[in-house]
Amino acid sequence: MEKYVFGIDVGGTTVKCGLFQTDGALLEKWEIPTRTENSGEAILPDIAESVKAKIAEKQLDPAEIAGVGIDVPGPVNEEGVLSIAVNLNWKDKDIVKELSGLLDGMRVKAANDANAAALGEMWAGGGKGTRNLIMVTLGTGVGGGIIVDGKIVAGAHGAGGEIGHACVDPEEETACNCGNHGCLEQMASATGIARLAKKYLANNDTPSSLRSRGDSISAKAVFDALKEGDQAASEIVEEFSEYLGNALAIFSCVIDPEVIVIGGGVSKAGQILIDGVKKYYQRDAFVPCKETPIVLAGLGNDAGIYGAARMLLD
Amino acid sequence: MEKYVFGIDVGGTTVKCGLFQTDGALLEKWEIPTRTENSGEAILPDIAESVKAKIAEKQLDPAEIAGVGIDVPGPVNEEGVLSIAVNLNWKDKDIVKELSGLLDGMRVKAANDANAAALGEMWAGGGKGTRNLIMVTLGTGVGGGIIVDGKIVAGAHGAGGEIGHACVDPEEETACNCGNHGCLEQMASATGIARLAKKYLANNDTPSSLRSRGDSISAKAVFDALKEGDQAASEIVEEFSEYLGNALAIFSCVIDPEVIVIGGGVSKAGQILIDGVKKYYQRDAFVPCKETPIVLAGLGNDAGIYGAARMLLD
Repeated sequence: MEKYVFGIDVGGTTVKCGLFQTDGALLEKWEIPTRTENSGEAILPDIAESVKAKIAEKQLDPAEIAGVGIDVPGPVNEEGVLSIAVNLNWKDKDIVKELSGLLDGMRVKAANDANAAALGEMWAGGGKGTRNLIMVTLGTGVGGGIIVDGKIVAGAHGAGGEIGHACVDPEEETACNCGNHGCLEQMASATGIARLAKKYLANNDTPSSLRSRGDSISAKAVFDALKEGDQAASEIVEEFSEYLGNALAIFSCVIDPEVIVIGGGVSKAGQILIDGVKKYYQRDAFVPCKETPIVLAGLGNDAGIYGAARMLLD
Repeated sequence: MEKYVFGIDVGGTTVKCGLFQTDGALLEKWEIPTRTENSGEAILPDIAESVKAKIAEKQLDPAEIAGVGIDVPGPVNEEGVLSIAVNLNWKDKDIVKELSGLLDGMRVKAANDANAAALGEMWAGGGKGTRNLIMVTLGTGVGGGIIVDGKIVAGAHGAGGEIGHACVDPEEETACNCGNHGCLEQMASATGIARLAKKYLANNDTPSSLRSRGDSISAKAVFDALKEGDQAASEIVEEFSEYLGNALAIFSCVIDPEVIVIGGGVSKAGQILIDGVKKYYQRDAFVPCKETPIVLAGLGNDAGIYGAARMLLD
């Protein structure tokens, strides 16, 4: 009888680790540094050692461990092979095979970090109780994850859920980091919102508390100003909301999820953000999908370890 | 050992029926009329009788029959329950339960017709050999189907794959049949292309062979004129291609399919249509997805019976 499962969320500076019960209870979490030097060759051995140490410390019976789930910042295909993770100095890595080998053949599954976060939110967060959801993570960039029938949609090129690169405005002249023009990420990430704000303030005379910030304007400042009734902030958030709400409505036509979960730093703005996005989502969504709930993520930075662990429990 | 499977495709005027081998070979196909009177109460009994007659005629052993797959023009959820099919005069119908009851408990699965067509194309058409695809059907309307891991994505409200109602132009003033404004269907269906053509000709002076057609302009006429070098037709097709190519690029970010299949009457225009759409798809698709093949559907009007049958073979 399997009682325990590990979830490992690999970031560019730290590796978050979690030991879970298979019923979803988080028993313990801890972190180790991510050693990215020498093509990140120490990362997987460090993780294996940390998992083994935890098994020894807790005196767990290997027969009771469902396995280790791991997520990384890069595209991972359905077999658990990563093509590239710039922040880890990794390229073409068979994560499942390597980590399983370091753990004496223990069962391992691997996924992209945004996809794992979506699965975590399904297991224990904003999408708890569902099996089909879209998660969008509004951070420095815009990440996403798609869950269909309780499983991550990894995609043919590991690009499933890469909704930050949906081209929502082909006329946009500034290029996205990906090289395309008009990606959702350019409109709805923290940096995207700051960009919309600077553009708005340069092209309009509306008085605004944001003007005193000059170039240091941030998404948080925009939402803070909105909450204080700032007119310019209100119009900037409308623009952001229309981009994101329309995009979510389009995504809904594709997989018709039970719920849409919004997470990431920008989502700390809270219900006011959901309300704005919902207005345009409901305008544009196909009739049967107009009432699909749009909710805030519930697990914060722990979504990755939850989702990584959940992969082992199909 | 199951050797045979039935695929039934219910349309507003005829029901297409197919008897397949489980290896995908179509042994026989035939049609019966769709009797939509009295809330379409005779449709399922007619189908059951036709299936039983074929079993008797071919002297099939019931133990060798995998079951009956059926698709209908309306939203069907994962349990095989239909909410509404206007063309059949059906509402809130438990298709699986009813048809299985009429067939002495035989295994039955049900799906939306566009979703079944997508699965059929995966089994034996343009997407043969894949397990993840997006199919778009350009007919009077724009239908679609999404296949992930070899299965139809039915969606929480039976609206999975309803990509014809992706809101690609919120500024559009004309309303779609669904009540929204700016649906892909208004730009990329046969009627949508005719609409774009009329608008273009009204707003531009470009000489064109299409002008002599007046209001009877059709999508086929536009593509025919394009093939003859008509400049206006070329610009109309560019507009259609940009709408559809951009939309497919957005859908690709969601599930990252192995292949995109284009079917329906409009797709009879052939490779010239694919080439136009691909140009804008490649402009807007996320880098790892730019080379995703876009191909013509291979099964024509038989896609439905193939996909309906394929549902039983998971």
